[in-house]
Amino acid sequence: MKPVITAFRQSPDRGRGLARDLRVRWALEEVGQPYEVRLLTFEEMKAPAHRALHPFGQIPTYEEPGLALFESGAIVLHIAGRHAGLLPADPDARARAIAWMFAALGTVEPPIVERSMAAILERGESWYEARLPMLDARVQARLDELAAQLGDADWLDGPFSAGDLLMATVLQRAKAAGLLDAHPTLAGYVARAAARPAFRRAFEAQLAVFTAASGEG
Amino acid sequence: MKPVITAFRQSPDRGRGLARDLRVRWALEEVGQPYEVRLLTFEEMKAPAHRALHPFGQIPTYEEPGLALFESGAIVLHIAGRHAGLLPADPDARARAIAWMFAALGTVEPPIVERSMAAILERGESWYEARLPMLDARVQARLDELAAQLGDADWLDGPFSAGDLLMATVLQRAKAAGLLDAHPTLAGYVARAAARPAFRRAFEAQLAVFTAASGEG
Repeated sequence: MKPVITAFRQSPDRGRGLARDLRVRWALEEVGQPYEVRLLTFEEMKAPAHRALHPFGQIPTYEEPGLALFESGAIVLHIAGRHAGLLPADPDARARAIAWMFAALGTVEPPIVERSMAAILERGESWYEARLPMLDARVQARLDELAAQLGDADWLDGPFSAGDLLMATVLQRAKAAGLLDAHPTLAGYVARAAARPAFRRAFEAQLAVFTAASGEG
Repeated sequence: MKPVITAFRQSPDRGRGLARDLRVRWALEEVGQPYEVRLLTFEEMKAPAHRALHPFGQIPTYEEPGLALFESGAIVLHIAGRHAGLLPADPDARARAIAWMFAALGTVEPPIVERSMAAILERGESWYEARLPMLDARVQARLDELAAQLGDADWLDGPFSAGDLLMATVLQRAKAAGLLDAHPTLAGYVARAAARPAFRRAFEAQLAVFTAASGEG
């Protein structure tokens, strides 16, 4: 029985790879676990049948016999616990890699999402331009700190881990908004992540949904 | 050797219990693990010695022999993995409890923090009042969904878990901003959490730092 994940039937970002099912696809590809995808319209995401799987009516979810999970971070952690390749075996190194998972989603992502959402929802408002420097400064402070931590290393703490996987997807959202232009260290990190064969397979699989739905490609 | 955590020397919220060391104190109290606290000024938090422990210059951190961790969610998960009492033993139930940890910090907390930060940093701006309904609506949408999930249950998924611990601390921030007034279900949930003896001990220990520093009490 392959696990089943959910994803957008219509890509909100026109196939740029920002939807969060990419994280789960990528983790499954890294560990070599085949999976199936159930596509959902926005209406289906908010319907009771999907809310029974995901209380906040979002994607992705993850189902295997006896278990249904939501939250991309929790799903990636579950996959990393079931298979070798995404977390160190040493318990202390494992705890540090998990700290980077929480840092990616709880500390680095929120100001990036806040800035992205303002650009989508408030661009026509009179205050948009006045607030933008403040929003950018919040993002840049986190990126400066992250770049200082990374330094010359390939990955955040030793070998590539689930922490890097989540952080790279968070930074891809920053990159799409032009926020990595002043951060060659982080741009290089994202490029290394995106060059991984497992990432490429995950990205292509997500993109194929968009091109099929749009008639493009 | 007791683990050592870091906390604010001066409470930014005047001892109301919102600083994130409370989560770690509470988890340690739930599992009966004594700990020590190293207090930091804001200047010390941003200095290189602390940044070696926490790349983003924040509290809390957690140190035990051979291991230093940051991110309150990761620290709570580490404590829950070392001791019984914060996560179910069954692997599937454990994965679901961990999903609630990620949901608390990645899905429910960001709009609450965004709204709180606007109230602190943008209250004097011309656009503050105009934006407030949008910020409140984002928070209320998440709270409605969370209340629907909780229903008549005491806790989010079976017995009290680390997921409830983190969610309750996130909702305490919403409560402090008056955002739980329309949510009796969630207000009751927060009250149940705050009535736990381990929470009371953690709260009193954090408050004692503030009263000692302020000369109040």
